[in-house]
Amino acid sequence: MKKLLSLCLCTSLSLSFALQADEKLMTASKKPIKNVIMIVGDGMGPAFTTAYRYYNDDPNTPEIEETVFDRHLVGLNSTYPAPISGYVTDSAAGATALATGIKSYNGAISVDVDKKPLKTVLQHAKTLGKKTGVVVTSQVNHATPASYITHNESRRNYDAIADSYIDNGINIDLLLGGGTKYFIREDRNLVEEFKEKGFQYVDNYEQLTSIKKEEPLLGLFAPVGLPWSLDDSNKHRLSEMTKIATEQLENKNGYFMLIEASQVDWAGHSNDIASAMAEMDDLAKTLIYLEQYVEQNPDTLVVLTADHSTGGLTLGSDGEYKWQPSVFKGMTQSISAIAQFIAEKEFTAEQLATMLTFALTDEQLSQLHSIKQDESEKITKPQLTRQLYKKLNQFVSAKSFTGWTTGGHTGIDVPVFAFGKGFEKFQNKTDNTDIAKIIFTIL
Amino acid sequence: MKKLLSLCLCTSLSLSFALQADEKLMTASKKPIKNVIMIVGDGMGPAFTTAYRYYNDDPNTPEIEETVFDRHLVGLNSTYPAPISGYVTDSAAGATALATGIKSYNGAISVDVDKKPLKTVLQHAKTLGKKTGVVVTSQVNHATPASYITHNESRRNYDAIADSYIDNGINIDLLLGGGTKYFIREDRNLVEEFKEKGFQYVDNYEQLTSIKKEEPLLGLFAPVGLPWSLDDSNKHRLSEMTKIATEQLENKNGYFMLIEASQVDWAGHSNDIASAMAEMDDLAKTLIYLEQYVEQNPDTLVVLTADHSTGGLTLGSDGEYKWQPSVFKGMTQSISAIAQFIAEKEFTAEQLATMLTFALTDEQLSQLHSIKQDESEKITKPQLTRQLYKKLNQFVSAKSFTGWTTGGHTGIDVPVFAFGKGFEKFQNKTDNTDIAKIIFTIL
Repeated sequence: MKKLLSLCLCTSLSLSFALQADEKLMTASKKPIKNVIMIVGDGMGPAFTTAYRYYNDDPNTPEIEETVFDRHLVGLNSTYPAPISGYVTDSAAGATALATGIKSYNGAISVDVDKKPLKTVLQHAKTLGKKTGVVVTSQVNHATPASYITHNESRRNYDAIADSYIDNGINIDLLLGGGTKYFIREDRNLVEEFKEKGFQYVDNYEQLTSIKKEEPLLGLFAPVGLPWSLDDSNKHRLSEMTKIATEQLENKNGYFMLIEASQVDWAGHSNDIASAMAEMDDLAKTLIYLEQYVEQNPDTLVVLTADHSTGGLTLGSDGEYKWQPSVFKGMTQSISAIAQFIAEKEFTAEQLATMLTFALTDEQLSQLHSIKQDESEKITKPQLTRQLYKKLNQFVSAKSFTGWTTGGHTGIDVPVFAFGKGFEKFQNKTDNTDIAKIIFTIL
Repeated sequence: MKKLLSLCLCTSLSLSFALQADEKLMTASKKPIKNVIMIVGDGMGPAFTTAYRYYNDDPNTPEIEETVFDRHLVGLNSTYPAPISGYVTDSAAGATALATGIKSYNGAISVDVDKKPLKTVLQHAKTLGKKTGVVVTSQVNHATPASYITHNESRRNYDAIADSYIDNGINIDLLLGGGTKYFIREDRNLVEEFKEKGFQYVDNYEQLTSIKKEEPLLGLFAPVGLPWSLDDSNKHRLSEMTKIATEQLENKNGYFMLIEASQVDWAGHSNDIASAMAEMDDLAKTLIYLEQYVEQNPDTLVVLTADHSTGGLTLGSDGEYKWQPSVFKGMTQSISAIAQFIAEKEFTAEQLATMLTFALTDEQLSQLHSIKQDESEKITKPQLTRQLYKKLNQFVSAKSFTGWTTGGHTGIDVPVFAFGKGFEKFQNKTDNTDIAKIIFTIL
C-alpha cells in the first residue's frame, strides 16, 4: 500500500502505471486455482511428522535438518467422527469428512449417518470438467480412495466398492495403487471392463514410463496393498507414481488428485516404527517433488493432512528422555519380511543381527525361538509370522525408545501442511470437514 | 489496496484523505507491542489440548464445543535440546530455549553448553524499563520460572536458584506460586529479604484482593508446588493469580510476564489424566480471561506453548477406537488425594466408587487391598500412597482408554497458540528458540 501510495502522489502517468500494476495483481489473485492435489497421510498424527525430522537428521552435521513437513506446516486438524462413533475416527469416517465436508459413522464410505450418499470433492471436480486422479499405496478400493470416488454403507464391501467404480459411471481419469485381487475376480474382471471403456492398463512400475498421455490410466501393482516401501522394487513408489500422475492429468481445465500414503497407518497398527518411517520417507520425497511441480505450476494447490493418528506413537518410553531412530534407520528390508524369513527358516543370531542392524540379547533370541518351538505345531504359518513380527517390533521399539499405546487409532489432532496457490486458507485450527468445504469453494 | 486505489482516482482531496488513512494505519501497525505475556503449558503436548476439547465437550449438545485453544492455535514448535542431550528435552533446557533463544543441555537453567549465563527475555525486558512478573503453579524456583529469572548450571540447585533471585539483583516486580520451603529456610529467610527490598508478601489467595498497586509483590501459597487444581481451595488459581498480576503490572512502559501451568507436566509424569485435565481447565480459564484483557488492552501479545510433552499421552488404548473423559470428569478431588485417603484409612468399595465416580471391579479392589496388606510393614506411608496412586491412575486410564508410554518426556512437537498484537509472528512451524528470538525482536 505504501508503494502504491507514493506512486499515486507523482503524476497522472504514474497513476496509470499504478492502475496497471494493481490490475495485474488483482487478475493474478483472482485467477482460479487450476489444480488441487489433496494428500492424506493415513494415520499420520503429529508424532509421525516429528519423528521423521529426527529419523531424517544427518548425525554428521551439528544442526537438525529441516524437513519438507517443517517448511509447509500450517495448522492442526480435529478428526472426530459423527457423535454416534465417539471421539476417535476410523479411516472411512475420516476420509468421508475430508472428501465431503460431512461427519459420518465409523465405516461409512461417503454416506451420511442415514446411509445417504454425499457428494465428494473429486466427484464435484469431475462435473466441473476437471480431470481426476487417485494414487495410493493401499488397494485402490480401500477406505480413503473409496471415500473420494464412490459411496458405500461399509468400507468392508471391497468387491462392491470396486464394482461401483465402473457401475456408477467412471469418474476418474487415473487410478494407481494395489488391488488386482478385487479387480480381477472369478465372477468379474474389472480390468477388462476398464480397458473396454478406453483405459490403458499397467501392472508394473516400469510400464509407467511408456504410457500414452491421451488415454486414461489404470495401474494395479499388487494383489492388495503395495509391498512395504522397505521391500518394494521402488522404495519411493508413491513419489514415482505421483510424478507420472501429474504429467498424465495436466490439462487446460485443471485436475483434482487424491494421493494417499496409505501404509503409514498400517505400520502404526502393527507398531512397526521402521516401516512407519520408511513410508514417511516416501511421502517426504513425494512432497519434495511437488514443491518443484508447484514452482513450475503456480496455479496448483497442495494440501496434506491425516485422517487420524494410528498406534498412539510417541517418541519416548519407559521413563527415558530418549528417542533413537539410528536403531532402525539402516534397515534394508521390513521387519515383516524379517519375520517371514525367520518363520520359514532356521536362523542364527548373526543373520538376524545383520538384518536388524543390531544384535538381540540372548533373552530376546530365546523368546523368538520359543515362539517358533512351542507354537509351531498348533498355529498356522501366517499366525507364526505375525507373532514373530509383533515380537520383533517390540524389540525395535524398546531399543529405540519408541512408545505405542494401541493397535488402533487415537483421537489426537493431526497436522495440516499446505503450499502453492491458496495454501493460507488452511492455516491455524481446522476441522476435517473444513478441508472439504474449503476445496469445494476453491473448485 | 483496491480501496485506496479508487480513492486515488477521484480528486486531490480524496488523495489527501487516502494519505491520512494510510498514515493512521501505519502508525497503528508501527506502534510497539506494549505488554508481552508468555505462557508455558509445561508438558502440554498436542494430545493434552486435543484431550481438553473432548473433556470440555457438553454431551447435551450435538456439536463439540470449540475451546479457547482451538480459537488461537497458530502452529507447532520443535523442542529438541542441544545435541549433547539427544532429541528429548527436559523442562530446564526447554525453558532455556524459550527464554533465551539458545539450546542447551538437559538440566541447564539459562546457561549454554559451556555453562555460561545467557540473557533471558525477562531480563531484557527489565533493562528496557518494563515491569516483569512470574506466575506459576509450581514452586517459583522450579525449572521454567528459574530459566526466565536467573541462571544456574543445574535445575536441582533449588536453594541457590532462590537465593539468586535476591543476590543477582531483583529483576522481578511480581512473583506468585509455591515455594516457602526454599524461601523460608533455617539458614536464610528470603521472604524477609524481599520485604526489606520493598516487596509486599502474601501467603494465601484471599490476601490477593487487598494488595497495594504501587508495591512489588511476592506471593508464596504452598511449601513446594500449589495443591493440585482438583484439591486447591481455588480450582482456578492460575487464572485468579493471572488476573491480579495483569492489574498489578500494568504501567506506561508495559510489562513482560511469564505464566506457567506447571502441573500439567506433573500429572503427565504420574500418568494422571484426571489432574492433567483439571490443570488444563485452569489454563483454559486463564486464556479466556486474557482474551477479555487483550480486547481491552490491544497492545498486548499473548503467546502460549509447551516446553515438551509429558507421559506419552494418547487418546486411545488397547485397540479400542474410544476415549472416554466422562469417566473422570465429575471427580471433585485428585486421584492423589484419594490414594492418600485409602492409604491412611480402611475403605469400602462404595466409598471408593463415590470418590472415583465409578465402581472398581472386584479384581481391581483386591489389587488395592493386596498393595495395602502385603506391603504395609515393609514400606513407608508415602511409598504406599505412591503405589496406590499409580494403581488408581492405571484404573482410570484403562476405563477411559487413555494411553501413556512413559513416566518421562517425549520428543513430539508441541502446539503454539497466540493472540493479540503481533500474534501472526508465531504462525506455522517454529522452533523453541524462535519463540525467544521473536520476543527479543518485539521488545
